[in-house]
Amino acid sequence: MKVIVTGAGGFIGTQLVRELCQRGTLALRPSGEVEISSIVAADLCIPEESRQGLPDWVSFVEADLSTDEAVDSIIPKEEDFLLFHLAAIVSGDGERDFDLCIRVNLEGTVKLFEACRNSRGQARLVFASSLAVFGGEACPPVVGDETKPLPQTTYGMTKLAGELMINDYSRKDFLDGRAIRLPTIFIRPGKPNAALSSFASGLFREPLSGVDFELPVSREQGVPLLSYRKVVEAFVLAMECDGEALGDDRTLTLPSRQYFVRDMISALERVAEQKGITLGKIIDQPDPLVIKVVEGWPIGTESKRAEALGMSADSSVEEVIEAYLEDFHEVSGQA
Amino acid sequence: MKVIVTGAGGFIGTQLVRELCQRGTLALRPSGEVEISSIVAADLCIPEESRQGLPDWVSFVEADLSTDEAVDSIIPKEEDFLLFHLAAIVSGDGERDFDLCIRVNLEGTVKLFEACRNSRGQARLVFASSLAVFGGEACPPVVGDETKPLPQTTYGMTKLAGELMINDYSRKDFLDGRAIRLPTIFIRPGKPNAALSSFASGLFREPLSGVDFELPVSREQGVPLLSYRKVVEAFVLAMECDGEALGDDRTLTLPSRQYFVRDMISALERVAEQKGITLGKIIDQPDPLVIKVVEGWPIGTESKRAEALGMSADSSVEEVIEAYLEDFHEVSGQA
Repeated sequence: MKVIVTGAGGFIGTQLVRELCQRGTLALRPSGEVEISSIVAADLCIPEESRQGLPDWVSFVEADLSTDEAVDSIIPKEEDFLLFHLAAIVSGDGERDFDLCIRVNLEGTVKLFEACRNSRGQARLVFASSLAVFGGEACPPVVGDETKPLPQTTYGMTKLAGELMINDYSRKDFLDGRAIRLPTIFIRPGKPNAALSSFASGLFREPLSGVDFELPVSREQGVPLLSYRKVVEAFVLAMECDGEALGDDRTLTLPSRQYFVRDMISALERVAEQKGITLGKIIDQPDPLVIKVVEGWPIGTESKRAEALGMSADSSVEEVIEAYLEDFHEVSGQA
Repeated sequence: MKVIVTGAGGFIGTQLVRELCQRGTLALRPSGEVEISSIVAADLCIPEESRQGLPDWVSFVEADLSTDEAVDSIIPKEEDFLLFHLAAIVSGDGERDFDLCIRVNLEGTVKLFEACRNSRGQARLVFASSLAVFGGEACPPVVGDETKPLPQTTYGMTKLAGELMINDYSRKDFLDGRAIRLPTIFIRPGKPNAALSSFASGLFREPLSGVDFELPVSREQGVPLLSYRKVVEAFVLAMECDGEALGDDRTLTLPSRQYFVRDMISALERVAEQKGITLGKIIDQPDPLVIKVVEGWPIGTESKRAEALGMSADSSVEEVIEAYLEDFHEVSGQA
């Protein structure tokens, strides 16, 4: 079966495409195992490192996925297909440019869902949502599938709107969708991105590369973290699960573990000492915009429904740092 | 100040325009009292009975409000204004025509909000939402501002999306919005409409007119009811309240009282006996589509925030039947 991944030029999209290539099959419930015949990796821009080492049945489409032409070019007209929809304007960019965020995250997503609905093939899809659907003064510190969402960013609002669409399009049998709410994903290699949660990766990545890091939040800030390995696994499990069995809410809040920034720093120092890595300095440089938004985010998740599908959090920060060193040792420039 | 009412050809819109004409002023918090200089009553179609007896500072615009031209023609470019946005495809029609529901309730609403944002005048608006934002298996029987919404109709989904937009547009200072969630409003005069809750008015209206009524739901069904007099008052209070004081969620679940169909019928029989009215028969004629949707709706509301603003439920069904006979005695054709 054909698989389409949007946002394939981003970090998680890149890892997901690699994982799908390695697996070669997906165990779709309740119908059974299917072979992945081809993958269309689509994004506005797909850097060379996202393309390297992939088999020839992966093709790349660089296009603005919020346009009719681009959507038309990636969604099959006749055959059944699987779609992972990750492409989005991230939270920081969304706060800076409301219209762009609406155009890409809301209108672009609706266009994609409409193309799925209009295809003669059956579409099964996973939509990447976010814990940014939660917030506000009455938001409990630990959130889950039963918590009332109340976005405090345009990004979070568009993600929640996407979840609503997934539910209604699935209820109407226009497609077979499911959404997963991502906590803060770490450790992202490469350059910082415009997500307001970017510090949760930079905090590890920069010091590990011997670069000083300016910490924009308090060391007492709690963050719900999940590693990129675990989130890629969650995307696969979300696609494989039986959509009907999710009931009337097809959104799953992913598991995470809650860490305070100070504990993240201690874990980093322990691993660095073990491995003989000389860390760059972490310099407290509070940023009021980041603090205001991040303080409104929940710090933990309750994820029984996701866990019942086999999705799980990492056992420790140390484990994630070690995996990062293993996967991106050279990329990070560390000797 | 100029006031615009969309959906002014509908029952609640008609009553709201009349109430605004009678009041002549609105006590906007925190700025103070303003005189209503003119009212633009807009809808796809505005019947003669909605126009009768209104002063000459009310003008009527018949147009498809989901088009750019219509929105452009009713939203002021320079002056401050107040907007009551009631126009919508109702629940039953929305289930039958998904595309129409999305075009009018979602895209049309966004167009209107965008016009408010782009106006050089300040826009203050009340958006008519609905208890249809709630539903699903895990929905508690009594819902309120802290309950997780989970729409089970396209209508409910578009109403929830409108609430999200109100919050985000207000947060970004694009407009000063607030949304009120309407329970089932009764007793509507005239013909049945395509709302799935239409039976809650027909149940009284048809027998009072000596016409037999086919009851599409069980007599054990509970319904959260609010009279048209109370909902018009709630629209005015929602416009008058201080939007900033609503905090990060500008949606208010309106008060209602929960009645079972059997109690509604008993109250009807009591009033009819008192007034010497010979009622048409109520015939049980269960409709699976209506039952399925209505059973998923909540049967009561918890509305502390709305009550703190002076919004309230009716004291009894009898009172509402009597008000209906007073207001629509001739319209209903009863001698």
